[in-house]
Amino acid sequence: MWRVFFTSAVVAVVVRSAMNWCKSGKCGHFGSGGFIIWDISGGQEDYSFQEFLPMAIIGVIGGLLGALFNQLTLYITSWRRNSLHKKGNRVKILEVCIISLVTSAISFGLPLLRRCSQCPDSEGIECPRPPGTDGNFVNFHCTKDREYNDLATIFFNTQDDAIRNLFSAKTFHEYSAQSLVIFLVMFYSLAVVTFGTAVPAGQFVPGIMIGSTYGRLVGMFVVKFYQKLNVEEGTDVILGYALLGAASFLGGSMRMTVSLCVIMVEITNNLQLLPLIMLVLLISKSVGDFFNKGLYEEQAQLKGIPLLESRPKLYMRNMTVREVCKNQKVVSIARIAKVGEIISVLRSTKHNGFPVVDQGYNGETHVIGLILRSHLLVLLQSKLDFQNNPFPCEMRGISNRHLSDFVKPISSKGMSIEEIHLSEDEMELYLDLAPFLNPCPYIVPEDMSLAKVYNLFRQLGLRHIFVVPRPSRVMGLITRKDLLVEESDSSATVELQSTSVRDQHQDRRANGRHTHLEHPLLDSLLVQE
Amino acid sequence: MWRVFFTSAVVAVVVRSAMNWCKSGKCGHFGSGGFIIWDISGGQEDYSFQEFLPMAIIGVIGGLLGALFNQLTLYITSWRRNSLHKKGNRVKILEVCIISLVTSAISFGLPLLRRCSQCPDSEGIECPRPPGTDGNFVNFHCTKDREYNDLATIFFNTQDDAIRNLFSAKTFHEYSAQSLVIFLVMFYSLAVVTFGTAVPAGQFVPGIMIGSTYGRLVGMFVVKFYQKLNVEEGTDVILGYALLGAASFLGGSMRMTVSLCVIMVEITNNLQLLPLIMLVLLISKSVGDFFNKGLYEEQAQLKGIPLLESRPKLYMRNMTVREVCKNQKVVSIARIAKVGEIISVLRSTKHNGFPVVDQGYNGETHVIGLILRSHLLVLLQSKLDFQNNPFPCEMRGISNRHLSDFVKPISSKGMSIEEIHLSEDEMELYLDLAPFLNPCPYIVPEDMSLAKVYNLFRQLGLRHIFVVPRPSRVMGLITRKDLLVEESDSSATVELQSTSVRDQHQDRRANGRHTHLEHPLLDSLLVQE
Repeated sequence: MWRVFFTSAVVAVVVRSAMNWCKSGKCGHFGSGGFIIWDISGGQEDYSFQEFLPMAIIGVIGGLLGALFNQLTLYITSWRRNSLHKKGNRVKILEVCIISLVTSAISFGLPLLRRCSQCPDSEGIECPRPPGTDGNFVNFHCTKDREYNDLATIFFNTQDDAIRNLFSAKTFHEYSAQSLVIFLVMFYSLAVVTFGTAVPAGQFVPGIMIGSTYGRLVGMFVVKFYQKLNVEEGTDVILGYALLGAASFLGGSMRMTVSLCVIMVEITNNLQLLPLIMLVLLISKSVGDFFNKGLYEEQAQLKGIPLLESRPKLYMRNMTVREVCKNQKVVSIARIAKVGEIISVLRSTKHNGFPVVDQGYNGETHVIGLILRSHLLVLLQSKLDFQNNPFPCEMRGISNRHLSDFVKPISSKGMSIEEIHLSEDEMELYLDLAPFLNPCPYIVPEDMSLAKVYNLFRQLGLRHIFVVPRPSRVMGLITRKDLLVEESDSSATVELQSTSVRDQHQDRRANGRHTHLEHPLLDSLLVQE
Repeated sequence: MWRVFFTSAVVAVVVRSAMNWCKSGKCGHFGSGGFIIWDISGGQEDYSFQEFLPMAIIGVIGGLLGALFNQLTLYITSWRRNSLHKKGNRVKILEVCIISLVTSAISFGLPLLRRCSQCPDSEGIECPRPPGTDGNFVNFHCTKDREYNDLATIFFNTQDDAIRNLFSAKTFHEYSAQSLVIFLVMFYSLAVVTFGTAVPAGQFVPGIMIGSTYGRLVGMFVVKFYQKLNVEEGTDVILGYALLGAASFLGGSMRMTVSLCVIMVEITNNLQLLPLIMLVLLISKSVGDFFNKGLYEEQAQLKGIPLLESRPKLYMRNMTVREVCKNQKVVSIARIAKVGEIISVLRSTKHNGFPVVDQGYNGETHVIGLILRSHLLVLLQSKLDFQNNPFPCEMRGISNRHLSDFVKPISSKGMSIEEIHLSEDEMELYLDLAPFLNPCPYIVPEDMSLAKVYNLFRQLGLRHIFVVPRPSRVMGLITRKDLLVEESDSSATVELQSTSVRDQHQDRRANGRHTHLEHPLLDSLLVQE
């Protein structure tokens, strides 16, 4: 958190000075645009109770459209994953090309069908915009003086400027309701189709586009309705409605509340509307939750990412872990195992982690840790640690290995057991797993409720947990106070501990037996396991 | 989070409408003041590189003054706790009275010693302020026309207005440097003395007062210095400096970064200065951290609250829990114990939790749970569950008890063993603890590193953890996937589980033996244990 915070502070300062430098024209079109900040300070300052109903309607629309968006993208993405994208990379590229073509055709063709509109008479508005500039009132195919095409004004703009225009209160009559509806339908469909193609595409700015379009629509109807009722209502309210629409669609689709609220306030630089954004987000999220899960959760689930929700299900309270692993057959690996045995275990199962058991002097077995499939594969592939005899390895492993050997490159899919080819001789060699295992995975007694285990997984970000029999005795009881170190005696403790660690290291080297203290090599890798 | 979010949205709307109603004058002075929002949009819009040095200086000053503040309040509060406040409640009241008197004397006396200043000639400023209003330019003892007392302008104002004036760029020459220094010293000393008295007093607004005072001082010096160098520099920068000063003092004292940043942006309604606030907060926090801990951490430690820092100390990685509880003697209680025995255990120890052990049919003991001292005291005081025979109680306990029996009222200090008086006969009765214990506290194996246990405590908010011997076998291995319920089969699972729970309940009632499933009574109490 602290590092992210510092980095973003530095980024903000650097970007600001770079933009100042670019304003002098030294970097061409590169510096234009800038922050995604829509200053809407010219808009409404206050709101009345009669506006709560249209705002609630915006929230409901946002929830419905957002939930529909999630459902449609889910269907299309799952179809892509399961059939389309399996046909190879060329299909992916072809798909992107087709979608680009369709998008271009729609963006260019639809404005052609619209009639030209008369420019407003207000001063201070350039209409149509001068050629070669970005901005409002695009004339497009309108050849007459002081005419513009309102649909082209949305389509033929950077999304940045288009949103600024949609949020703008100065241009109340710029867009006809018809154009806004056409744009909404087309843009929504294109957003659904584009999401999940093989190009990196954000979901945020399109979401604001969609939301602010129907927000502005609702705002226009409200203004007209109140004008009929002769209620005083400035045209500047559409600005607030566009903003609330954007918030409601993002809320209905992504289902974030607090963070979205902060984001909306940040990008509009307006705290006045905060409570309204809150209420609209709550409504749209509730409506959306009625139908399906949030966009990112749906997609994560589709990708097979085991994302745990923040709270355990209710029935988990009444279920013990014993019931969950009743039908499990635990596959253990001996501390010093034959390479061939390890290979056959890895081939016959799909588990990602295995308990490692060892026999003590008295013949009793006990569990000495957890080894990951990925680490086993690394060991098998490198062959460095194979040994001829089935005796402990005297911690040779530590000096042979670097932490980076066990780290999976982020771009790769990880190794598979099929990639490992060993000779018959090598199969007969032994491997001592002690230096490479996680000596102390978290354990739970067999009759703990599943809800508690759920919390353990979720809070600590675990991947595996051992279920063990109910303990026969308690060796100690740790309380919070035991973990608090007084300022005065902490240095003494550290010194004491570092000696004791050194002693243990010597002990370990001396008798060659593995103690279960975490050793430095895999420590940082294993801290989350 | 969700509930808090909703509540604050409702609060914001209600307050806003209540304030609108109050503006019509129907609620006297009650509605004046309002939000703690200082709109500083009239201030500087941009900043240059040459201003980074003075801003860094503000950060350093904030860190130093904040650390000093924490240290001084720590000394004074610990003296108060250990000697002054032990003399009784009258002393507390007397202390508050004396501090109030001193504060009043200083606030009234110091401005008397200052000379009167000439009002500025700018238009649009009422100087001196009309009698009976709150605002700028207090004339106090200045009898001449168009004169005011600058020290009185700070002291004789609501803190709300005083901060608004300190942040104001319109009144550059309102305060002389001398007055600001005097105010800073006096207000700082008073804040140190007042903190921790027996009156509820916030730390936020005084912090902003102190910070903005020296921030404005630095700003004044910067403007003067740049004027000498003939560098163009508007007087409006002092506004930003006052704001940064406030942020730096709060950061140096409370050591929050991200949250303080958001708060400062919210109360000033200004995003332009966000990166600067970030940098100043980072500097002041780092400088402060060099000397001592944050204000709240120091005070929590003084109060004996076992607050764990976010990360374990480094040496904990190399230390096992076995070493921590090496010298512990674990005091267990039998499942069915004599009342007299329980009393003697509670008298002879100070532990807050005890393992409960039970003997199986084959004579083997096993740990069946953890019971809290506070729950034992409730059982002993009510005497409802005492029984004549040492046999299991057939879950009678559940029907006798309500959850609220075991909840400690928030205003009380909790029961003590001295308050419980039992007759000789009652001492000979038995108590079956099975229905009242936490059947599954979290356990860790003896050779887990202390760092991991630390994370467990911190992330799950635990109070006790059992240290158990290294397990002899693994009964199962739970992974994240086991905890994910597919949308389609969740209802089926719930049904399946609810039957199995019902079965178990019947089993339990039938043979009168306690199974270790969590029962509904203490479930919600124990979920965090």
